[in-house]
Amino acid sequence: MKEIEYIKIIKETISDSSYIGDDCAFLDAKLLGDKGLFVTQDSLVEDIHFNLSTISPCQLGEKAINVNLSDLAAACAEPVFVTISLSLPHYLDIDFVKQFYLGVNSACEKYGIKIAGGDLTGSDKLFISICAAGKKMIPYSVSRRNAKDKDVVVTTGFHGDSAGGLRLILNNISKPQSLVNAHLSVQPQIEKSMLIANAAENDFAMMDTSDGLADALFKFSQESNVNINVDFESIPISRELKETFFDDYKNLVLWGGEDYQLLFCLSENVYEKLDKNKFFKIGNVVQTDSNPCVKIKDNNQNYVIDKDMFSKKSFNHFGEK
Amino acid sequence: MKEIEYIKIIKETISDSSYIGDDCAFLDAKLLGDKGLFVTQDSLVEDIHFNLSTISPCQLGEKAINVNLSDLAAACAEPVFVTISLSLPHYLDIDFVKQFYLGVNSACEKYGIKIAGGDLTGSDKLFISICAAGKKMIPYSVSRRNAKDKDVVVTTGFHGDSAGGLRLILNNISKPQSLVNAHLSVQPQIEKSMLIANAAENDFAMMDTSDGLADALFKFSQESNVNINVDFESIPISRELKETFFDDYKNLVLWGGEDYQLLFCLSENVYEKLDKNKFFKIGNVVQTDSNPCVKIKDNNQNYVIDKDMFSKKSFNHFGEK
Repeated sequence: MKEIEYIKIIKETISDSSYIGDDCAFLDAKLLGDKGLFVTQDSLVEDIHFNLSTISPCQLGEKAINVNLSDLAAACAEPVFVTISLSLPHYLDIDFVKQFYLGVNSACEKYGIKIAGGDLTGSDKLFISICAAGKKMIPYSVSRRNAKDKDVVVTTGFHGDSAGGLRLILNNISKPQSLVNAHLSVQPQIEKSMLIANAAENDFAMMDTSDGLADALFKFSQESNVNINVDFESIPISRELKETFFDDYKNLVLWGGEDYQLLFCLSENVYEKLDKNKFFKIGNVVQTDSNPCVKIKDNNQNYVIDKDMFSKKSFNHFGEK
Repeated sequence: MKEIEYIKIIKETISDSSYIGDDCAFLDAKLLGDKGLFVTQDSLVEDIHFNLSTISPCQLGEKAINVNLSDLAAACAEPVFVTISLSLPHYLDIDFVKQFYLGVNSACEKYGIKIAGGDLTGSDKLFISICAAGKKMIPYSVSRRNAKDKDVVVTTGFHGDSAGGLRLILNNISKPQSLVNAHLSVQPQIEKSMLIANAAENDFAMMDTSDGLADALFKFSQESNVNINVDFESIPISRELKETFFDDYKNLVLWGGEDYQLLFCLSENVYEKLDKNKFFKIGNVVQTDSNPCVKIKDNNQNYVIDKDMFSKKSFNHFGEK
């Protein structure tokens, strides 16, 4: 099978193949808006980020797009186009490519995103790298450096379900389905991102919780040089997660990762405009003169996530280098 | 070593790290121009596209950027930004990342290109995927589908040197240096692309010869549905290539690949405006009613590159699937 034959199948599989065929794809100025572009690139590597025995090619295609859309949501950007680089090991064939692109296509169609080509090559293991770009929608800066004293800390939904789901999958347990689904299928918070954009009145801090809730909270504290106080009781946690992992669900909630919720810090009065059934206040921001950290209150327990604890607990993609 | 530590080194290594730190990088509307954007993504996989024993980390970083800039040159696009995804095996460390980004930075600095973040993760082998975007500069369409009857076929420089250099490298031969360099260091034809843009008066066909001269000629014939007649004698070929591979240099010229020259088809009168020391006419386009192909005249020999011959000779990244 040659690249030209793979490209033929891809063009037949996606809804709009008009951007595929030349060395570059052209995106019209009208598509890009006039306020600038947000760009992001995320890669998924076989046996590091996924295992082909536990996720279908179609689910993988959908997830690969959605993890990038989650980054655009974290910038309040409206998704416009993606480019897709796929490196195929010898044990994957044309059927895989077709199923993968069916997943890619359904994720892109949902938001009217253009598939603006990419690259297809061989490799030892499956490697997926996707670049996504979105339009700037609001005049304010959205950055993890914008958390400030008296801000409230807000998130958009359950944490821990994805990591719980992964643990079930690795033990060949298929229930609760909601946890397994939370791991296999990422829901980028585009709609909620737009609601936040509509409510915003000035610069604010936002990121997604792809690397874990504690990771995101800690990054806010370090990048904005503030303390983040969190009431653990107020973090949205599913009944399924508590009942399935009653012994250490709290660990999954804080450190599990891959939840792809939004976490943001903005002023109380902006938060008051948001729907309390969709946005959950979990803490507040306090200025500090030194050693910014995250302080978590859990019943009578209080503990601190500082540099030392973070470097012990946080996920290391690279192994112990 | 954690991702956060790698990112620290990358920010210290590149000239302008202001785009790095959030889930997305923001590109200002002024940077992007108002005529639309060309985007491309190319990946380089260890032991498929390069071998770490034959290219330095710095050369690799430079090459990874330049192969993408070559695609932008083929669209007459002015490069604006790149995003970079790097997947590191355990046997590569912080020194590799620093050297790689020194190469990335020097390639980007040369054209004032913004390094707009990307992704860093682990893997079994080194995997590099780069997305590059450039501004539209001319009102005409530049596509491999635009070759038309009576066009002249033009290229920008030597073919075969890169493949010849690779063959030397694989045999641990370091001379002629010019051939080895042609393989290790890619020169994207940005300046010549701008000269073509300035001369252009209507839509024309262009691509780079990264997959080989014969591959590019054949793609023009298939995508534009025309015959391409080429006079082999008029193809720019270096003395070093002829003297080193006198037995089969012609094979390297046509099928070697990785030359990253521009190949284009446009009207005779536009060609007349171009500097004949920089642009070399190698053939012409002839309309056909059926079975478009490439016809190569070499002294008294004539041969045809049609679908059958092409599928036999062209490079297959994917092995014999």
